[in-house]
Amino acid sequence: MRQNPERRTALLDAAIEVLAGEGSRGLTLRAVDAEAGVPNGTASNYFANRAELLRQVMERTRERMTPDASALGDTMKAEPSRELVTTLMHQLVERVRGDRSSHLAMLELRLEATRRPELQAELTRVFSTELDENIRFHLDAGLPGDRDAVVLLYLAMRGLIVDDLTVPGLLAPYPLDGLIGDMVTRILPPEVPRTPEARS
Amino acid sequence: MRQNPERRTALLDAAIEVLAGEGSRGLTLRAVDAEAGVPNGTASNYFANRAELLRQVMERTRERMTPDASALGDTMKAEPSRELVTTLMHQLVERVRGDRSSHLAMLELRLEATRRPELQAELTRVFSTELDENIRFHLDAGLPGDRDAVVLLYLAMRGLIVDDLTVPGLLAPYPLDGLIGDMVTRILPPEVPRTPEARS
Repeated sequence: MRQNPERRTALLDAAIEVLAGEGSRGLTLRAVDAEAGVPNGTASNYFANRAELLRQVMERTRERMTPDASALGDTMKAEPSRELVTTLMHQLVERVRGDRSSHLAMLELRLEATRRPELQAELTRVFSTELDENIRFHLDAGLPGDRDAVVLLYLAMRGLIVDDLTVPGLLAPYPLDGLIGDMVTRILPPEVPRTPEARS
Repeated sequence: MRQNPERRTALLDAAIEVLAGEGSRGLTLRAVDAEAGVPNGTASNYFANRAELLRQVMERTRERMTPDASALGDTMKAEPSRELVTTLMHQLVERVRGDRSSHLAMLELRLEATRRPELQAELTRVFSTELDENIRFHLDAGLPGDRDAVVLLYLAMRGLIVDDLTVPGLLAPYPLDGLIGDMVTRILPPEVPRTPEARS
């Protein structure tokens, strides 16, 4: 297997575009070569087979979807509160809208996973790790709400993201600000006092 | 176009199985004939083209996903309360799990819609009608919560259903009873007093 990291990344990004644009049935090593504009046979020098390509596509989408560490650091300087969670959820939607291909590619893989148990096991592992990390991040940051609240917020945002990606007009009557603000206010408790003195 | 209603329904049910099993790219009139076990060319006597087939598939999935009116009537004899909403959400999950093909077919169409504006317009119209009907049903039944609460509940259930269909293991650590109960309790207000006397 070849090891040029930039070339590998370019091939994975091409695979994400093929998945988003053509669906999972359109994803072949040959289609990846064509999308990346490289000679036929290149992708097969980097990925032993389609399953290995899919595994690396998942890793690559996670990389692309992860917020920039320094921007996130800046955001997290604010007091841990429902307002901060609201900001984080808006940033998540912005990232999704800024990289629709990654999210559509993962939706395509979710559907392919209903027909391939080994892909479903891999996706479950990847998404479970991600959800656990989100819960850990939320609790470690002292944001309001327990594990169950984070899971509910995850589910509501998952629903919002799937609709926003696939039938954006459905939520057009419900402005995003209101939806996210309302979601956070209803699902999470008010800011938790961090000092012994009660705060209102 | 032929008009035998049972034959048409059988062809639409076959199309739903093809969509769920093969993805939207696998859905051809010929594949529908094969799945339905009818002579090649039958489906083309019922559907002028693929777009017309998809339009009727959407109608058919809505029929299949609609709760049985008399069973729903029995459920709705209970007091309008968060407990009743919890029961309705459990029944929704049971219907999804009892007809995975319809829901997977609609997820496939959502993804195809990202590549076909006319399909996206049609899906948006169908889902918007459905959401409006859900809101109307909730408010008319005197269930707790306003329009925004119903939309939030819809989003959280959408997220839960997409995960349950595609990566069911992801939510395995979170028992369904707890998830749904918690969702309803956090998103909806307590039972609204229906008489002038305040109830606790």
